[in-house]
Amino acid sequence: MTEATIGTSAFDRDTAVTAQGEGVYGADLSAQWTIGHAVNGGYLLALLGRALGDALPHPDPFTITAHYLTASRPGPATVRTTAVRAGRTLSTGAASLLQRDEDGREVERIRVLASYGDLAALPDDVRTSAKPPQIPPYESCLGARDGMDPSAVPPITHQIDLRLDPATVGWAVGAPSGRGEMRGWFGLADGRDHDPLSLLLAVDALPPTAFELGLSGWVPTVELTVHVRRRPAPGPVRVAVTTRNLAGGFLEEDADVWDSEDRLVAQSRQLARALPA
Amino acid sequence: MTEATIGTSAFDRDTAVTAQGEGVYGADLSAQWTIGHAVNGGYLLALLGRALGDALPHPDPFTITAHYLTASRPGPATVRTTAVRAGRTLSTGAASLLQRDEDGREVERIRVLASYGDLAALPDDVRTSAKPPQIPPYESCLGARDGMDPSAVPPITHQIDLRLDPATVGWAVGAPSGRGEMRGWFGLADGRDHDPLSLLLAVDALPPTAFELGLSGWVPTVELTVHVRRRPAPGPVRVAVTTRNLAGGFLEEDADVWDSEDRLVAQSRQLARALPA
Repeated sequence: MTEATIGTSAFDRDTAVTAQGEGVYGADLSAQWTIGHAVNGGYLLALLGRALGDALPHPDPFTITAHYLTASRPGPATVRTTAVRAGRTLSTGAASLLQRDEDGREVERIRVLASYGDLAALPDDVRTSAKPPQIPPYESCLGARDGMDPSAVPPITHQIDLRLDPATVGWAVGAPSGRGEMRGWFGLADGRDHDPLSLLLAVDALPPTAFELGLSGWVPTVELTVHVRRRPAPGPVRVAVTTRNLAGGFLEEDADVWDSEDRLVAQSRQLARALPA
Repeated sequence: MTEATIGTSAFDRDTAVTAQGEGVYGADLSAQWTIGHAVNGGYLLALLGRALGDALPHPDPFTITAHYLTASRPGPATVRTTAVRAGRTLSTGAASLLQRDEDGREVERIRVLASYGDLAALPDDVRTSAKPPQIPPYESCLGARDGMDPSAVPPITHQIDLRLDPATVGWAVGAPSGRGEMRGWFGLADGRDHDPLSLLLAVDALPPTAFELGLSGWVPTVELTVHVRRRPAPGPVRVAVTTRNLAGGFLEEDADVWDSEDRLVAQSRQLARALPA
């Protein structure tokens, strides 16, 4: 595997957007980031985040929220951005991901609201009381394709380098832990280092915590909010996802993302539905 | 103090919106919900949440995100709502809070994106692993006005019934704990019970956790997301707020809200700036 860099990797190519003037961008949703019929929500958020980073005067998503409205499909799409406010430290914008249905009508897939800033301009103070997750070394963790029938492997698993903590993969052998926890190492398969945009992918790339709670149905995201707190150091990140409140058919998933310098580089929370199997 | 009910309390009066046709509402931001020059962000979110609940086909905010753009002032305001999508279980909408500046120009104060549903329609399953916070009994907690010079008491403290856990009020006597924690009982001063809208207030009504971390400057909210998970039972709620990552001049505040039946009725996270004192 050749080592890709930020700008040259499959992730950059597949999240590319083409300016079509006045805050509008063309995009092509890649079939390489799907699982089942679904295009991964973190991949889509990264694509929208790239468009907003181009449209707004600040480069980095400090806090970005997406509401997933209808199921995106691989193929052409349009991103429409709106500048809400441009300030000195932060600028705020909205974005919509749109596709055409079989009758040619425009359907909104995702609506985003975000505030952008410049991570490079932040002071160096760190007073983090959270601790990095206890995850076995990369080599001791389990690859996303390990033990799977190659013909059944979802396309996205070829794009990412996900190594799950063996303590959180009981669901795969019919023995879920009963705890709402999922942990692992996360990188891109072509060796590209992380940047703020790939952190938007990292928070939504692990299997649902609901699997370890013994549920096996689909867990579609209603809303996902990501705070990117620091530009990540090179190397894979550690992602720890927890669920504390599965009730009324909904659950939250909180993700912490730690870089190779033990810095908490992103925090996310999503509200998801727990659908029957 | 007379016992107010949902619909008759000061909170309901001060968050009222008047339909002006086509998703537009008039409002009057009350000076009774201020602290210093600032109108409380949770109060403003409740007002916006009320407008969206009227504009959308579903009644309750399941997940609502606000980006605070400019400082709201007591006085007239306009709420403009936009329906994004109406589904069977959830509907999604956006809203803007607008005021006129001294030159009569419209300025946007807050932008909101939210998905609404019907809490009464959710199934009864509960698998919450989170535990209610350990807070001393209401009678043993400290009122927000206790020991304050009456002439220095912010207006909002007369509207709410906030009783802080003595373990998290060290900051008030110059001895912050150093832990990013703030806990207390929270109700409305006129005895009104909670509903989903007052939970939007509850998550942003405690003093900043930054005070217990030894900071004394202003901590303005950049973005606040609230998940309302259940219609709260009667009586005051317990609110526990934690900060785990103060870095680069920003911090997150996570709030859990528990009702009198020990149910986790709301979860929130905000990104805030830690400004110099």
